[in-house]
Amino acid sequence: MLVNGKQGNLISIRDRGLLYGDGVFRTLRASGGHALHWPLHYQKLQHDCASLGIACPDLALLSAELNNLLDLHPDGAIKLIVTRGQGMRGYAPPARSEPTIIWDVSPLPDYPDDWATSGIRARLCQLRLGQQQHLAGIKHLNRLENVLAAGEWNDADIAEGLLMDVAGNVISGTRSNLFAVSQGKLITPDLSRCGVAGVQRDRVIAWAAKNSMPLQIRDISLDEVLRAGELFVVNSIIGLWPLRELEQNHWTDFPIAAQVRQSLEETDA
Amino acid sequence: MLVNGKQGNLISIRDRGLLYGDGVFRTLRASGGHALHWPLHYQKLQHDCASLGIACPDLALLSAELNNLLDLHPDGAIKLIVTRGQGMRGYAPPARSEPTIIWDVSPLPDYPDDWATSGIRARLCQLRLGQQQHLAGIKHLNRLENVLAAGEWNDADIAEGLLMDVAGNVISGTRSNLFAVSQGKLITPDLSRCGVAGVQRDRVIAWAAKNSMPLQIRDISLDEVLRAGELFVVNSIIGLWPLRELEQNHWTDFPIAAQVRQSLEETDA
Repeated sequence: MLVNGKQGNLISIRDRGLLYGDGVFRTLRASGGHALHWPLHYQKLQHDCASLGIACPDLALLSAELNNLLDLHPDGAIKLIVTRGQGMRGYAPPARSEPTIIWDVSPLPDYPDDWATSGIRARLCQLRLGQQQHLAGIKHLNRLENVLAAGEWNDADIAEGLLMDVAGNVISGTRSNLFAVSQGKLITPDLSRCGVAGVQRDRVIAWAAKNSMPLQIRDISLDEVLRAGELFVVNSIIGLWPLRELEQNHWTDFPIAAQVRQSLEETDA
Repeated sequence: MLVNGKQGNLISIRDRGLLYGDGVFRTLRASGGHALHWPLHYQKLQHDCASLGIACPDLALLSAELNNLLDLHPDGAIKLIVTRGQGMRGYAPPARSEPTIIWDVSPLPDYPDDWATSGIRARLCQLRLGQQQHLAGIKHLNRLENVLAAGEWNDADIAEGLLMDVAGNVISGTRSNLFAVSQGKLITPDLSRCGVAGVQRDRVIAWAAKNSMPLQIRDISLDEVLRAGELFVVNSIIGLWPLRELEQNHWTDFPIAAQVRQSLEETDA
């Protein structure tokens, strides 16, 4: 664990990350001493910091800290948090503030191998995401909706919950992005009003472009999700999981998901 | 500053308050060694903790810590934060967790005296609050909307910004609750889809009941706000401020606001 370049696992109670969730984060997979797709994560970090008006730490600085971390922890789930730092009392962002940079490493979760090939059981969450265009897409620290949604079930057999928004669009998993395969094309939810646009989502979108697979980014109703030929979720820790069960619906074949997964894993190497 | 009963100003980077904004807070005014309306704040804390499924710390414990704090800091703005504490990786709330209790004290802000009597200049924020019924009313740590709204202006002469929601209802100030006076009745926005229901809002509502002043809690349009006979905002630090200016509109007389303020101040003592 590293806080502002020093070994440590503590931050100030006056950090705006705690006070207001005023910060952003990334979750990376470290494998064999490499942080997978770090340049893509850094691009997202830059984008998210800019959206909130937080000064994004320099790539060279973060890369150096990351490399030191990887020397000690070649494999694991790496979390990077950048907050706006400390400031005077009150919501208004201070004119000048020094961002707080936090690194943490955890062991990779031990998911059953066949979830990636045979698919997972998923459920539909009751909580509906609110719409906030100024925060949509950003991996920020205001994650109470995800906390409440993930708290809706405790059956360890159910690997993910899907989230709809208040307007009835299906948006994502609680910690993953969603893709549907329908009539030879990929569809992924529009995230301009809620949700988090993850690195793996971008990688699937890039895969579609490269492989001339039609892809649509748009609103998707629950009905359309349930009628999809395949469904899969992605994030940097789980990789890609097809859905074999969602509420009362079942799927058994995932030819496109398997193809995407294979390609993602090849380019992980 | 006190963290889990010990002098200190640091918390773990694995605290869910930082990771997800998974916690609630209160802001109290300390005056002459007393924390004003502490019982009302504790009731709100209990309610907000229950809404998020956080075990609310015991009243006796918090009261003892607060009294120790007041011995050292008889006057000031006291912040109490209760987070869900630490847990395993992931959004789902742990089955058992020990809440983190944080106390902090700051000097009271030095506002011009005449803001309470002659009113403040306020503006209308561009940011629209998202609607999330499961978080509405709660003083939780997901406050990025307030941060972005408060960052919209830096004219120190403008004391508060009013927030509308995505549906066009006026909801509150960035850090205060709003009341309108219209045709002999008080109106305050319905906070069942967004906003924070503060202690001073409850006190004004109680004042209306006691003084047989009709009061409505309902949606209010911007048009109705701009046509109101009086407008005022309340919170525990500022007390009550009438609005003398909002965008291009001006008000000069605040008879009801003055009456409410006097009553609130008398019962502060």
